[in-house]
Amino acid sequence: MVTELVTLRNQIDKLDKNLINILSQRLELVNKIGKLKSHYGLPIYIPEREKLIINLRSKEAQKLGVSPNLIKDILNRIMYESYINENENGFKKLNLNLKKILIIGGKGGMGRLFKKMLILSGYKVNILEKEDWNKNIDNFFLDIKMVIISVPISSLDYVIKKLPVLSKKCILVDVTSIKHKPIQKMLKKHDGPVLGLHPMFSSDNNFLAKKLIIYCHGRYPESYNWFLNQIKIWGVKLKCIDKIEHDKYMSFIQSLRYFSMLTHGFHLYKENIKLKELLNFTSPVYNIDLIMIGRFFSQNPNLYIDIIMSSNKNIELIKNYLKKSNYILSLIEQGNKTELIILFYKIKNWFKYYIESLNLKSNNILRHINN
Amino acid sequence: MVTELVTLRNQIDKLDKNLINILSQRLELVNKIGKLKSHYGLPIYIPEREKLIINLRSKEAQKLGVSPNLIKDILNRIMYESYINENENGFKKLNLNLKKILIIGGKGGMGRLFKKMLILSGYKVNILEKEDWNKNIDNFFLDIKMVIISVPISSLDYVIKKLPVLSKKCILVDVTSIKHKPIQKMLKKHDGPVLGLHPMFSSDNNFLAKKLIIYCHGRYPESYNWFLNQIKIWGVKLKCIDKIEHDKYMSFIQSLRYFSMLTHGFHLYKENIKLKELLNFTSPVYNIDLIMIGRFFSQNPNLYIDIIMSSNKNIELIKNYLKKSNYILSLIEQGNKTELIILFYKIKNWFKYYIESLNLKSNNILRHINN
Repeated sequence: MVTELVTLRNQIDKLDKNLINILSQRLELVNKIGKLKSHYGLPIYIPEREKLIINLRSKEAQKLGVSPNLIKDILNRIMYESYINENENGFKKLNLNLKKILIIGGKGGMGRLFKKMLILSGYKVNILEKEDWNKNIDNFFLDIKMVIISVPISSLDYVIKKLPVLSKKCILVDVTSIKHKPIQKMLKKHDGPVLGLHPMFSSDNNFLAKKLIIYCHGRYPESYNWFLNQIKIWGVKLKCIDKIEHDKYMSFIQSLRYFSMLTHGFHLYKENIKLKELLNFTSPVYNIDLIMIGRFFSQNPNLYIDIIMSSNKNIELIKNYLKKSNYILSLIEQGNKTELIILFYKIKNWFKYYIESLNLKSNNILRHINN
Repeated sequence: MVTELVTLRNQIDKLDKNLINILSQRLELVNKIGKLKSHYGLPIYIPEREKLIINLRSKEAQKLGVSPNLIKDILNRIMYESYINENENGFKKLNLNLKKILIIGGKGGMGRLFKKMLILSGYKVNILEKEDWNKNIDNFFLDIKMVIISVPISSLDYVIKKLPVLSKKCILVDVTSIKHKPIQKMLKKHDGPVLGLHPMFSSDNNFLAKKLIIYCHGRYPESYNWFLNQIKIWGVKLKCIDKIEHDKYMSFIQSLRYFSMLTHGFHLYKENIKLKELLNFTSPVYNIDLIMIGRFFSQNPNLYIDIIMSSNKNIELIKNYLKKSNYILSLIEQGNKTELIILFYKIKNWFKYYIESLNLKSNNILRHINN
């Protein structure tokens, strides 16, 4: 038995080494393509090209008896690796006339990320930090043609108020995760172009390929269109939404989520339960919960708490949510299984068209967790 | 530009085709190994061998400038694919003397899965279904040396009561997701060996490699040790825990989780929000939530609701949880940011040793979601 097994395992080892060789060559080619793309200003992420490759290879794999999902997952993983390295080539600068960009709060996570991407794209970037506001800040705004505000929500009002009069052509941008009030305030303060961005990712990411940025128009889109295109070159997916609509969804998503994360963490901490054992005996599904809660508490609380506290609507929403919790609890206490099951199917029906695809996605995540 | 780009892309296409070839050859070799393993009764999942391969290849990759994480992820994915196919070879039968196994509830998801794995391991398996209980069931138990009860929690009492007297050597097993009461009841009913299993995965999985089954001893472990070894051959990770301890953790994990899933779904359904837009504008973190809620509502409600309702302790736990929600809400309403931040850090501190690894894992999941 032993010799047979050893022979087969040696053959596998040889194949795996070939695999590494292929990966190394492929990453090198991608790097060359990156340089070309950077030179000609092509986005590093081209969804159509990705889809095409994956479809072609899936079909070829199937012919050889290899599951299409396997090759799809592997190619996705390799492409992801390519994006990580793609920054090294820099990006084409789309606005050749733009002299200098000022990032207010440029030392924070998101500020640093924008600074890095803008510098990689050939722009000059200055930074204005908290400690600078006591000085005469007028000098910071000399020759500045774009101002990006990247400060905590709680400082936003202060920062906008303190802004000096900007030149009419200067583009004023914020990256706050609520949009209605910030854009209103920027429009009031500044007569020129105004744009609201909401990057849908945490700033500890080192690259932007495939990431989503939501944007809301403020004023004079024609003046900042180039900037949206510049962001696209970084590989970002952009989606436009009305600012009021945006805040409705975000209030719904963020404040409730942060609230329940807080409660869940509070609960874990208060109950006399051993985290080590909990991690040992959790199903993959609950494991995901624990992982995401761990992520939540590894980050800076100020942002979360500011977002929850940013509007009375959020408090209403949370109260509403707790009412529903109490209703479900009452059904459980009454032992009303029938009503709970009816409710379950009503909710299932609400999900209708999406439930299958969500379920498939969950299988993927769980498979990933299991590895 | 175009010709340069086309040349590079063609070279990539060639490499990708080589990649598929390697995958195809590798899966074939793994299949041969599977046959050997099946013949000699070796587990299909050997954690040490996996770790060894991945470590060796990671180091080789690094030498060639390929990120160790990339090769690690790809090898994990390939190995996963291998497990899917490994069942085809069947498994070595460890208990040659065992005549027949009876699965009560063998048409349910988990019953079907056990039936399949047992048949693949060379055992004869009979099924006793709900509709059979009206008949004279004694015949079903003739020559049966192991009975596996795989019925909904709510039917468990009934089924155990209805069991005929089993032969002293017959092994009685259940796969319920609570363990204290079921094992007590089996011990009372049957004088022979008793074992409690809790498979920590949903039954829609078609293979068991790397999955976790928790087990709690009932009586005479020496008689069912072979069965635990048999399960190991299927690639399962086994963990032993005391039955009371088990239920404490599960009540904590399951009932609360199912409760909050129900509430969250109820909330989504009641609020006038468009699911399509919600999916469009969610951050990856919230996307995971939606996916897992979708999964929850794609499944059979009975199991969940039975588990929540299975003990008064669960109701206490939920009430306790809601109290904490209300406390946090009160801090928000008072605008008591300081206290919320203090609380946040206390919770963070509770996570201490694990927070970093949980955060790393969350990055992995999020990367996966983004693809």
